[in-house]
Amino acid sequence: MSGQFLAESLTLTGGDRGVVAVVAVIALAALAVGYVLLKEVLAAGQGTVKMQDIAKAVQEGAAAYLKRQRNTLLIFGTVVFLLLFLLPADSTGERIGRSLFFLVGAVFSFTIGYLGMWLSTQANLRVAAASVEDGGREKATRIAFRTGGVVGMATVGLGLFGAAIVVLVYTGTAPKVLEGFGFGAALIAMFMRVGGGIFTKAADVGADLVGKVEQNIPEDDPRNAATIADNVGDNVGDCAGMAADLFESYAVTLVAALILGSTAFGSLGLLFPLVVPALGVITAILGVYITRVRPGENGLTAINRSFYISALISAVLCTAASFIFLPGSFSELAGLEDVAQKSVAGSPAVIAAVAVIIGIVLAGVILWLTGYYTGTEHKPVQEVGKTSLTGAATVILSGISVGFESAVYTAIVIGAAVYGAFLLSGSVIVALFAIALAGCGLLTTVGVIVAMDTFGPVSDNAQGIAEMSGDVHGEGAQILTELDAVGNTTKAITKGIAIATAVLAATALFGSYSSAIIEALRDVGVKLEDAGSAFTYIVYSPNVLVGIALGAAVVFMFSGLAVNAVTRAAGAIVFEVRRQFREIPGIMEGTGKPEYGRVVDICTRDSLRELATPGLLAVLAPIAVGFGLGVGPLAGYLGGAIATGTLMAVFLANSGGAWDNAKKLVEDGNHGGKGSDAHAATVIGDTVGDPFKDTAGPAINPLIKVMNLVSLLIAPAIVTLSVGVDASTGTRVAIALVAVVLIVAAVVVSKRRGTAIADTPAEAPANA
Amino acid sequence: MSGQFLAESLTLTGGDRGVVAVVAVIALAALAVGYVLLKEVLAAGQGTVKMQDIAKAVQEGAAAYLKRQRNTLLIFGTVVFLLLFLLPADSTGERIGRSLFFLVGAVFSFTIGYLGMWLSTQANLRVAAASVEDGGREKATRIAFRTGGVVGMATVGLGLFGAAIVVLVYTGTAPKVLEGFGFGAALIAMFMRVGGGIFTKAADVGADLVGKVEQNIPEDDPRNAATIADNVGDNVGDCAGMAADLFESYAVTLVAALILGSTAFGSLGLLFPLVVPALGVITAILGVYITRVRPGENGLTAINRSFYISALISAVLCTAASFIFLPGSFSELAGLEDVAQKSVAGSPAVIAAVAVIIGIVLAGVILWLTGYYTGTEHKPVQEVGKTSLTGAATVILSGISVGFESAVYTAIVIGAAVYGAFLLSGSVIVALFAIALAGCGLLTTVGVIVAMDTFGPVSDNAQGIAEMSGDVHGEGAQILTELDAVGNTTKAITKGIAIATAVLAATALFGSYSSAIIEALRDVGVKLEDAGSAFTYIVYSPNVLVGIALGAAVVFMFSGLAVNAVTRAAGAIVFEVRRQFREIPGIMEGTGKPEYGRVVDICTRDSLRELATPGLLAVLAPIAVGFGLGVGPLAGYLGGAIATGTLMAVFLANSGGAWDNAKKLVEDGNHGGKGSDAHAATVIGDTVGDPFKDTAGPAINPLIKVMNLVSLLIAPAIVTLSVGVDASTGTRVAIALVAVVLIVAAVVVSKRRGTAIADTPAEAPANA
Repeated sequence: MSGQFLAESLTLTGGDRGVVAVVAVIALAALAVGYVLLKEVLAAGQGTVKMQDIAKAVQEGAAAYLKRQRNTLLIFGTVVFLLLFLLPADSTGERIGRSLFFLVGAVFSFTIGYLGMWLSTQANLRVAAASVEDGGREKATRIAFRTGGVVGMATVGLGLFGAAIVVLVYTGTAPKVLEGFGFGAALIAMFMRVGGGIFTKAADVGADLVGKVEQNIPEDDPRNAATIADNVGDNVGDCAGMAADLFESYAVTLVAALILGSTAFGSLGLLFPLVVPALGVITAILGVYITRVRPGENGLTAINRSFYISALISAVLCTAASFIFLPGSFSELAGLEDVAQKSVAGSPAVIAAVAVIIGIVLAGVILWLTGYYTGTEHKPVQEVGKTSLTGAATVILSGISVGFESAVYTAIVIGAAVYGAFLLSGSVIVALFAIALAGCGLLTTVGVIVAMDTFGPVSDNAQGIAEMSGDVHGEGAQILTELDAVGNTTKAITKGIAIATAVLAATALFGSYSSAIIEALRDVGVKLEDAGSAFTYIVYSPNVLVGIALGAAVVFMFSGLAVNAVTRAAGAIVFEVRRQFREIPGIMEGTGKPEYGRVVDICTRDSLRELATPGLLAVLAPIAVGFGLGVGPLAGYLGGAIATGTLMAVFLANSGGAWDNAKKLVEDGNHGGKGSDAHAATVIGDTVGDPFKDTAGPAINPLIKVMNLVSLLIAPAIVTLSVGVDASTGTRVAIALVAVVLIVAAVVVSKRRGTAIADTPAEAPANA
Repeated sequence: MSGQFLAESLTLTGGDRGVVAVVAVIALAALAVGYVLLKEVLAAGQGTVKMQDIAKAVQEGAAAYLKRQRNTLLIFGTVVFLLLFLLPADSTGERIGRSLFFLVGAVFSFTIGYLGMWLSTQANLRVAAASVEDGGREKATRIAFRTGGVVGMATVGLGLFGAAIVVLVYTGTAPKVLEGFGFGAALIAMFMRVGGGIFTKAADVGADLVGKVEQNIPEDDPRNAATIADNVGDNVGDCAGMAADLFESYAVTLVAALILGSTAFGSLGLLFPLVVPALGVITAILGVYITRVRPGENGLTAINRSFYISALISAVLCTAASFIFLPGSFSELAGLEDVAQKSVAGSPAVIAAVAVIIGIVLAGVILWLTGYYTGTEHKPVQEVGKTSLTGAATVILSGISVGFESAVYTAIVIGAAVYGAFLLSGSVIVALFAIALAGCGLLTTVGVIVAMDTFGPVSDNAQGIAEMSGDVHGEGAQILTELDAVGNTTKAITKGIAIATAVLAATALFGSYSSAIIEALRDVGVKLEDAGSAFTYIVYSPNVLVGIALGAAVVFMFSGLAVNAVTRAAGAIVFEVRRQFREIPGIMEGTGKPEYGRVVDICTRDSLRELATPGLLAVLAPIAVGFGLGVGPLAGYLGGAIATGTLMAVFLANSGGAWDNAKKLVEDGNHGGKGSDAHAATVIGDTVGDPFKDTAGPAINPLIKVMNLVSLLIAPAIVTLSVGVDASTGTRVAIALVAVVLIVAAVVVSKRRGTAIADTPAEAPANA
């Protein structure tokens, strides 16, 4: 086993370097296309002055939040940067490169998030304005989707460009430098996901609790002081958070593929994982340009059509590339001569082609599966809608059932893809590379997926601006409602795809983890077999089993913390909105104006404060387990976190999506329609689902990868402290204890804050 | 590694046999004490004629259900019996013994369940009657706790007697025969848990939805046609199901300890795991007799006191027994001479003593932890109660947070116990035995735990009978309300303890699984190292990781199915109760009498029909994974199922418990009291929690063990079909496919039934 895991020294021929350079150029081309689309979006009409005022308030709030978040992340990022610099490295060049590209990954991740947020605050207004023009449906859909296109192009462009540059500049130490790149991207994305998720849902839940429930005024009503915050939230959560998250998925999957590729196939393995997503960039550009809503057609049909077309083209191009770039027989690859007999597929080219196709097919299946479980036109959501007739309890129970069920099927589908890629080869290391390539296959669809996803919050916000301004009526309002419903489904689909990439990337990284251990053991002169129980990875070994349980537990803990943070922050919003209704005269009559900015400030402050605990948990828990219990239990920990994380992420996303659309069903006039008891029951379901689907659920995706990358980075240090001349149980345990103490302190501090939402009602509501 | 896992041939000396015989006599003594307690309970006064009439209706309903359940289980049991008989065995004696004791385990499990149910239907009435007598509080508490004592004594008596007899009769093949015994017990317990859980919660939810929500009549109102079914449910779910479940926990933990003990310590290991629970029986008898409520004292204080006293005595006795029965040095044990250097503890006696104490301490910690998270006097439930002021959505969210958080801490505590036991020894096999011994330590508290648990439904039902008869007022009613609240907490605690035994037993059994594989490989002449990827257990291997994900997925699926079954069956009840209100004249005025029997019949029919799918899933999923993907992925599967199962079981049990008691808090006059909006919000929380805490959550405990035992039993067959002369990929895959097809068919059939609760509202409610 060990032999297969050790990479030979990596060099690229002149031709290879040429190919990588072409990949970099394609990446830059994607950025250029993004720029063209951007110009097009910004050129669209900006509607009435009232609409522009509202949009401006949202833009300012969102920019203020991201500025403060940047400052918070700067502090945290600097600490991690220094720690990362201190971790063992084979050479100074590797050490500097790893830390440098950690910064690059982090900056790219933040930039994409910022771009996504900034652009969608610009586009919201323009979509709302377009809805009242002639041919409004086509124009509005086009602007919303092109906005997504800009973000999609930036995501794939920056991700691919970064990876290509690392390969070109560092070649031999590229895998190590890429670890830093991926880690920077994933870490920042996780924080943007969690912070933005808390912001958006605290504002949403807080606005609903006072507005809809207590004051009985509609959503997005300008009399509600939390309305602007709610719209800001859509942008910082759904746009900035999701864009950073998808960029991170893209970067980390690519990183995993390059690391494993170089381990399995040597230099060839540094080349091919860049070629596949480069082809994906080309088809994504195509996908964005061919998305046109035919007259009378639903927006989702158009989006789905271009997704499937571009996926098909990707599959064809990637198959061709496999046979062009990879050898037809294992005998041509050093160290893998014996794989040929064990492998089902027999040839590297066939394995790669099939693996990439598995990834593309996986994207399609998840697209369908998520659509089925969260779309209003299918049975699951319709049944959740029906249970609203027997009250909120049955709505909650049926939504939870839908979530559990869809999580199981999604996990089985992803598991089948992993197992399928594994079966292609009899060798663990080639199998891991195949899984990473399946991830690259998935990546070819990311450009279109990001475009689909950004579509959601942009149309949601366009509807908000239209509602608040009061300037959109009749057909325009109808168009925006339709777009919003389409957006709900595309958002749910993106979450499914994101978690699939997380699993594939994490599974592949998991393999790199083992390779890191074996290399580190070799460096201290010990073979894995002789290294004792701390290095045992065998599942039934009780310490590994404890690791699996802890990995599963962290997912539960992280989810609980995220949900708790939302309810706590929402409590503060409820308090503030009630205060404004009480103290500012004439709000309800429309003669007084609420102080929107104060609510935005509270959301900003609370969400940045609340993201610390789950963020620290993600970084510190693997440190505690790894240094405290050893690399064997840490392997179990990663396995448990990946398995439970997949299920929990899909469960949270899909039950939330089902509740959201069940509410939409009732609002469309089913089971009594708006204002009925059934509607009230689905509003409760939707409120429960809000932090599920937009805070806890999607944050699990970067969580899994952050934990995997932390483990990968600390693995050599754990080994050094466990065996050999520098072994020191004292130091090892001390590091673990510091991590545990920091986690406990963070949890205690966040507990101390109390459940604000539980404490606020002491102050009587304005209309009590 | 492999050498350590192979048991030498087992023989007992004359003295050893004497000790086992004494253990059997102690087991019989427990049964005798149970009989004495039974006489005492039955001798108590039976109250008014009206109370007796109601009790009789409940008794008849419960008996009818168990009779039909017995018939269902007979069919299923016969099929499994035949399949079990066909599985490979080393000798005909072993084959017959294994199948025979499968039946014994199954019959014992059913008997304990039946006894628990029958006795509590007798005791309900007597507790209700005692509450109105002089010194009612002490008398009522005493009868309720003594009733628990009978079931507790029967549980430990039958469990210990069965295991002792197997050791005496089969000695050499005892481990294999014990697999059958444990499997029979776990399988029947799982079905009784699931069936009873569906019955009780369908009736409860159905009764509440029509009674409390639609007709606005109180709980246990005789005008509600589902009232008797609700009370029957408490008996078949909380009494029969829980008693069978705890018996199964007892039996399987003992079985795991005996199997691993014989593998690790040879014949000595067959002796010591019997001695520890025998000492537990003695302290349990003591515990039941010393439980006396001091004047003015809360029942829970008295119960906790006797728990802690008997736990302390157990710890002292077991420590003494370790030094009497086990050698002071590893050099005296064949094959383990080298463990001494690696072991922290150094001596078998010390390891055993510390392990048993770890188990006892674990029981105490979980007792405290569960009490903290679900008791009305602590912060978590009080915060859930407070959130009722902002509506049902925040109640649900805060309850879910409490559930997640408590699951994490419980998993960490259990993990620490496992890791502590593991650390005692440097050898995996001795570590596994130590974990099993920690399980035995936990077992010493089971007598008292069962008594505590049965207390819950008995007082719940006593209150129901009192309410329905209208014959209990003033202090009597107050006493019963207090007892009911104590019962809620003891029920939650028992669930915590049950899941802890499940984890310890499953972790230990997991070790036996490996030993079975190695033995089977040796039989076909292959070493584990040479056997290829199907036999790899390494965590990061992609196929094992897929196994972990599938194991976690099965827990989600099982939970979803159980929750779904309840909402579906509850829908049928809603339908029937509404029909009766509409068609039977004068129900609301009290001049017409509802047909209670029809609702009981529907519950019986539906819960027996609904238990098939989750039951089949538990048995067939490991078969599909094992035969389909191999023993390596099956190992991962078990690891994933244990880890996620622990978290999910505690999450479901504790969030349900917290909602239940948050409702009680509001009903006690907090936050607006009964009838307020806050109360309505907590009723929704409680209804969501019902299937969580009484159907899905507790059923995960036997689920984990059934899956482990199935895996253990099929492991040799998988090996035989995978390598060696009898290898046949075709047969192997065919078996897996049959299992998959059966699972899919079961799921499709249960889907076809539709979500009855969603379909019923089509018929307008009576008061609409």
